[in-house]
Amino acid sequence: MSPSVYYEYDVVVVGAGHAGCEAALAAARLGAKTALLTMNCDTVGQMSCNPAIGGVAKGQIVREIDALGGEMGRVIDETGIQFRMLNLSKGPAMHSPRAQADKKAYQFCMKWKVEQQENLTLRQEMVKGLIVEQDRISGVIVHGDAQYHCRAVILTTGTFLQAIMHTGEAKTKGGRAGEGTTGTLSDSLVHLGFELQRFKTGTPARLNGRTINFSVLDEQPGDEDPQPFSFMTEKINQPQMSCYLTETNDYVHKLINENLDRAPMYSGQINSTGPRYCPSIEDKVVRFAERDSHQIFLEPEGRYTNEYYCNGISTSLPRDVQDKMIHSIRGLENTEIMRYGYAVEYDFATPTQLNPTLETKQVEGLYFAGQLNGTTGYEEAAGQGLLAGLNAALKIARKDDFILDRNEAYLGVLIDDLVTKGVDEPYRMFTSRAEFRLLLRQDNADRRMTPVGRRIGSVSNERWQKYQAYDTELKKAAQFIQSTRYQGNTLEEWLRRQDIGWTQISEFAPALEDFHFSERAIQQTLIEVQYAGYIRRQTAEIEKQKNVEALHIPDHIDYQVVPNLRNEAKEKLSRVKPRNVGQAGRISGVTPADLTVLVLYLNSSSRMAT
Amino acid sequence: MSPSVYYEYDVVVVGAGHAGCEAALAAARLGAKTALLTMNCDTVGQMSCNPAIGGVAKGQIVREIDALGGEMGRVIDETGIQFRMLNLSKGPAMHSPRAQADKKAYQFCMKWKVEQQENLTLRQEMVKGLIVEQDRISGVIVHGDAQYHCRAVILTTGTFLQAIMHTGEAKTKGGRAGEGTTGTLSDSLVHLGFELQRFKTGTPARLNGRTINFSVLDEQPGDEDPQPFSFMTEKINQPQMSCYLTETNDYVHKLINENLDRAPMYSGQINSTGPRYCPSIEDKVVRFAERDSHQIFLEPEGRYTNEYYCNGISTSLPRDVQDKMIHSIRGLENTEIMRYGYAVEYDFATPTQLNPTLETKQVEGLYFAGQLNGTTGYEEAAGQGLLAGLNAALKIARKDDFILDRNEAYLGVLIDDLVTKGVDEPYRMFTSRAEFRLLLRQDNADRRMTPVGRRIGSVSNERWQKYQAYDTELKKAAQFIQSTRYQGNTLEEWLRRQDIGWTQISEFAPALEDFHFSERAIQQTLIEVQYAGYIRRQTAEIEKQKNVEALHIPDHIDYQVVPNLRNEAKEKLSRVKPRNVGQAGRISGVTPADLTVLVLYLNSSSRMAT
Ligand SMILES: Cc1cc2nc3c(=O)[nH]c(=O)nc-3n(C[C@H](O)[C@H](O)[C@H](O)COP(=O)(O)OP(=O)(O)OC[C@H]3O[C@@H](n4cnc5c(N)ncnc54)[C@H](O)[C@@H]3O)c2cc1C
Ligand SMILES: Cc1cc2nc3c(=O)[nH]c(=O)nc-3n(C[C@H](O)[C@H](O)[C@H](O)COP(=O)(O)OP(=O)(O)OC[C@H]3O[C@@H](n4cnc5c(N)ncnc54)[C@H](O)[C@@H]3O)c2cc1C
Repeated sequence: MSPSVYYEYDVVVVGAGHAGCEAALAAARLGAKTALLTMNCDTVGQMSCNPAIGGVAKGQIVREIDALGGEMGRVIDETGIQFRMLNLSKGPAMHSPRAQADKKAYQFCMKWKVEQQENLTLRQEMVKGLIVEQDRISGVIVHGDAQYHCRAVILTTGTFLQAIMHTGEAKTKGGRAGEGTTGTLSDSLVHLGFELQRFKTGTPARLNGRTINFSVLDEQPGDEDPQPFSFMTEKINQPQMSCYLTETNDYVHKLINENLDRAPMYSGQINSTGPRYCPSIEDKVVRFAERDSHQIFLEPEGRYTNEYYCNGISTSLPRDVQDKMIHSIRGLENTEIMRYGYAVEYDFATPTQLNPTLETKQVEGLYFAGQLNGTTGYEEAAGQGLLAGLNAALKIARKDDFILDRNEAYLGVLIDDLVTKGVDEPYRMFTSRAEFRLLLRQDNADRRMTPVGRRIGSVSNERWQKYQAYDTELKKAAQFIQSTRYQGNTLEEWLRRQDIGWTQISEFAPALEDFHFSERAIQQTLIEVQYAGYIRRQTAEIEKQKNVEALHIPDHIDYQVVPNLRNEAKEKLSRVKPRNVGQAGRISGVTPADLTVLVLYLNSSSRMAT
Repeated sequence: MSPSVYYEYDVVVVGAGHAGCEAALAAARLGAKTALLTMNCDTVGQMSCNPAIGGVAKGQIVREIDALGGEMGRVIDETGIQFRMLNLSKGPAMHSPRAQADKKAYQFCMKWKVEQQENLTLRQEMVKGLIVEQDRISGVIVHGDAQYHCRAVILTTGTFLQAIMHTGEAKTKGGRAGEGTTGTLSDSLVHLGFELQRFKTGTPARLNGRTINFSVLDEQPGDEDPQPFSFMTEKINQPQMSCYLTETNDYVHKLINENLDRAPMYSGQINSTGPRYCPSIEDKVVRFAERDSHQIFLEPEGRYTNEYYCNGISTSLPRDVQDKMIHSIRGLENTEIMRYGYAVEYDFATPTQLNPTLETKQVEGLYFAGQLNGTTGYEEAAGQGLLAGLNAALKIARKDDFILDRNEAYLGVLIDDLVTKGVDEPYRMFTSRAEFRLLLRQDNADRRMTPVGRRIGSVSNERWQKYQAYDTELKKAAQFIQSTRYQGNTLEEWLRRQDIGWTQISEFAPALEDFHFSERAIQQTLIEVQYAGYIRRQTAEIEKQKNVEALHIPDHIDYQVVPNLRNEAKEKLSRVKPRNVGQAGRISGVTPADLTVLVLYLNSSSRMAT
């Protein structure tokens, strides 16, 4: 028989999707000897669905990933084909960068970054199971009778666990069209006692642009002055491409309604929950019956392909209905479908089984990140991957956990929501989920995250030097406008007036020009002046909350013995195991009264302990 | 139940590999409404194995494909990263262009060409079976209860039929690592009465260049003046990359010998035949036991990746042996393996079941092309695809078959060898297979094939105009050098002298300069002058043979009644159904005496008929 072959690493990351790539890069950059194992080296960083990165709230996440030294921002800057800053008509807190990607260029660029990373080994392997000894992870088993032994495993298998794809009545096993599934990993997780649930998500058809009648469509060009995602990118130089707008109509809606009994979501063929905020076209037609049209964005999938993505009509309707639907849409009358839309049902692991480091509570050293945790979206996946990778490497180096607060980052909100509240539908980020969204802006992501990242070691020297130069500029600018007066008022006070900008204050105080502040520093200074009032108030609020929220809950607290705690609260708290009172308060089913009882108990028991 | 959905096309091509892409493009360019159906639109034109196009004999095929209006030459010109003309030290007939490809760029460039082609619809579909009515093809069945109805089907499924991959003891179903298999299609073919056999082929490990010690390796740069494959490419402008050389050693050979019992080819796990001329390293070590080293070329897989291909050590040895083997090779001591080598076993269809149009004898309108016919190599596959696509479209348009003679093209040799002799090992092209190789040069492929292609409609106006200009140049040049004398001899006679070149004759006859002949025309003229003697003799020989060989054999001849024909010959001829005496003579088992008997019979029966 075959001898047992094994390899030794510190960290093993399973799956090289958006979560897996960031996880592996982060762990390797922190010095952990890392292996990134994935089914097919040709699908590293592949975008399963829409060819775009960023968007409202998601763009902010990408900026935070970048500020912490992650890769997503740089890769989209290199491979984007259309850049737009969304919500420019709203205040800066709502400004959100978004870019169309050249899908294949993005993916192979990410693969290249991974290949170039010291300490990181990318390998084509099919992972079949986990090796756990006494509730501690010790490795993974791969196809071909080999094992990887390690001290931490980060599972980022996306939509691939027990996955089934649906197009009308037709079903296929697999996590993405043309690819396979990974059945045995699910079994391995269930065997270890993890709770798995099922979600579904969907994707629209892809069209051949050669057969689209663009002349009758509305063109949507990119921004004139495209803004990069990454702090490290000086300028977006590549030419931009346009998207095109069209829409559904009465006939399409009628067609869908007539064929609802053949839609897997309505025929009972799929039972699992799909993303409410990214509904299929059949969902939209049913839920918004009063609307007679829904917008469709036709987005190029790349610079060197005719393939177009139909944003807005994700569907799992049967192919004949998709044919008729597409051909009844303005501009698509003679359009060829290259790939049909489909839905995929997959297992995810209830995320309340995780600590805020994304380590599982049950198995030490085992981390979950990405769509496996019930989220949706490349950015949410990448963010989790980054944090899991950092935490795994920190733990191995016996350093402190890296946990971001809700008031520090969207990433903090994301993780806290997942591990505290769990999910009952595929989770995506919204600005409304962040209580402190006025603080968590895309423009200040570097200032919020880069110093933190530097502290834990995820920020390179190159970035840190560049950041420090920028920080110095900002300090000088702030000091100058606060201390320089014109007609009795400081320049900062002048700037608070709607009609006064940088040009005016440079006239008031010509010395300002001598600093040669960068455009980025000027913009940041202006935003901070504008927001100063809000920010002061939010900061005060945060401080107030912090005192109570920070109150630590010991790991091994027994909620059963807490006097006066309601049974529901006992059960929920025991399950979620919150780390502090703040987290406890956000558990659904835990009331303010329960919290008070808990705080009293913690105070008394800590008094007793001392 | 689901309604039956169907689509209508003239030609359906199954599989978008090298054969399928050329087949579909060719059929569409001849005006047939064509569908190209493939398992995964992201693997169109994917190179399963080495990242290179061309080479000895193969380069000539690419030049012929190009001259007929095919796409392979243009795509490699656009995406090549290193160009070399092999065999420059030998005569022009042996000169063979070869280029390293940026694998991913090649593949996505081919996909783009396909997408842009009028009349051609590329669709992601899994083909499950064939629809045949009364020995005529009428369509294919795809996954998801749909059918494509059509008048011709070209099957180009490569290594995917009933495919099993082996790495040591580990087996996986699938035709290429990370991809699936297509079981039911094999059943469909067997059910129709086709004979399927099994072959195997293998591929080496892929390495991460970041971990290769290039400083101890020998660099192999590209040509200083890279020559394009395509007549349509003016110049190769992109920068070139280097390959690197290393070699196996005693220790590696010992390791392999010690582990032969674990090599699927030797353990009995694989029984099928592999390519003799492209052996695995275990084969080489066994067959050439006296050699203590074999060369290894480390070839970059692309411009924007660190992945390297190890040309020369294709293997299906177990992973632990591959690990040790790689790490014992100079320069690879610390190299990371990204993907392990493996062998694949697959079904192919005995090619003597085909007419020289590549249409099957059994089922009208059904064509086979590519690795499915027992060949190996991208170029061989593409060439067959082109010819099958052309013939399918010609047949639908009720035009004559397009069959190339052995003395016209390597493609003629390829098809004739396949359908007449069959294969007992994976077939690849060699110059030695072509009796008339002095005529079938890479430099004159355009002159041999473009006029033929123009006649059947596969050569675009653009190419034809360019070709005519070139042809005019050549004619003018020939006329001038034949009619202009210097010191009593024609310039042509002068050029036959070793020491006289174009520069000299331009001095002898300064009027030559006024023509401003292109470099290409000058080179071609020089070669033709040099070869004139040989060429005259070969042409005479061809003419002599032609008279007998061209003798047509009626489709429905009954060999049983041919007097004096040996039984073996009766059986072989009945099976192969040769179209003419030339083809009959090349069937193994048919002797010259049998041929004489046959010719006599044909003459007498044709006399009787008139
Ligand atoms: C059909 C579809 C539609 C979607 N629609 C949307 C949408 O509209 N909007 C949106 O924001 N997001 C959408 N998504 C989700 C988006 O693709 C994911 O959020 C994101 O890709 C998740 O990233 P990930 O890294 O968690 O997983 P993935 O990107 O799925 O990567 C998982 C990786 O793990 C590998 N893998 C799996 N199992 C194994 C194993 N056993 N061994 C080795 N490797 C393994 C896979 O090969 C893959 O590389 C959609 C996804 C799909 C499939
Ligand atoms: C492991 C390996 C090693 C090799 N080694 C060498 C070598 O050393 N030297 C060499 O010259 N050649 C080698 N080859 C062969 C080379 O890859 C082939 O000759 C060439 O790719 C064949 O081209 P093709 O078009 O016939 O088939 P392929 O390139 O295999 O393309 C077949 C296509 O058909 C599609 N397909 C299959 N079934 C279906 C279906 N049912 N429905 C829809 N689509 C389908 C597939 O997705 C694929 O796109 C190797 C191949 C493999 C797999």
